[in-house]
Parts: sequence; C-alpha cells; structure tokens
Amino acid sequence: MSRKRNVRQIFGQNLRRKRETLGISQEDLAEKAGLHRTYIGSVERGERNVSIDNMERLAVAVGSTIEQLLES
Amino acid sequence: MSRKRNVRQIFGQNLRRKRETLGISQEDLAEKAGLHRTYIGSVERGERNVSIDNMERLAVAVGSTIEQLLES
Repeated sequence: MSRKRNVRQIFGQNLRRKRETLGISQEDLAEKAGLHRTYIGSVERGERNVSIDNMERLAVAVGSTIEQLLES
Repeated sequence: MSRKRNVRQIFGQNLRRKRETLGISQEDLAEKAGLHRTYIGSVERGERNVSIDNMERLAVAVGSTIEQLLES
C-alpha cells in the first residue's frame, strides 16, 4: 500500500470525534490519559508527531484502539 | 477495549517479520524509509517510543500499514 495519507490528521480527527461522542472535554481526556490538555488539542489538530505510547494511552482513554483511530 | 498490550513490542515484532518475509536487511529498510539502521534495530526490539510519522514511513517501506503492523 503506497497511498500517501496524513496519519496525524486521521488520528487527530478520529480522536476528536470519539471524544465528542463520549461527551468529554479535552481536559477530561487529558486527565484520563495522564497527559496535558494543550497536548490533546495539538494532537487533535494533527500538529504533533505523537508517539506510539501516547497513541495507545489516548486510544485506551476513549475506549478504542490505535487501529480504529487510524481508520479513514 | 482496556486490555493492556505492549504496542511497541507488537509493532516491532511485526515489522521484523514483514521485513524478513521481504528478504531485506535492516540496512535496506533503513534506506527505503530514510532512517538509520541502528534505529530500525531498536524499533524492532521494542526499545523505541516510535512516532506516528516514522511508523507510517516504516509501514509504507515494507508495503504495509500501521494498522496491520499492530495486529497481534
């Protein structure tokens, strides 16, 4: 598969969608995942080159998986 | 899904398996992905908190996807 895709954007948008579906704020998610609120915002906007460990924390915190958060 | 899994290990092992199936060396993969050979080794051993951008580069370089490389 060589299709060029923006994985940061896909992950960020899916994370935001999942968070909003759960009705929780960036601050709530930050607390659940043990990360900073401003960090959550930058990940959701696709600005961060987020690490695999933090991707997993975020996925678990919204009851999902990294794989699901990469679906486009 | 709250099952605790070691995503670094899963990604690293799947990356190695895929690379070996393709019959290419760490050095070959490093060149294809634009990364260092020693870096590839540490990712395969699960030692690195690899970033989403590098996960995508590595996945593309072995003709796969991040999602596939996280299957356990």
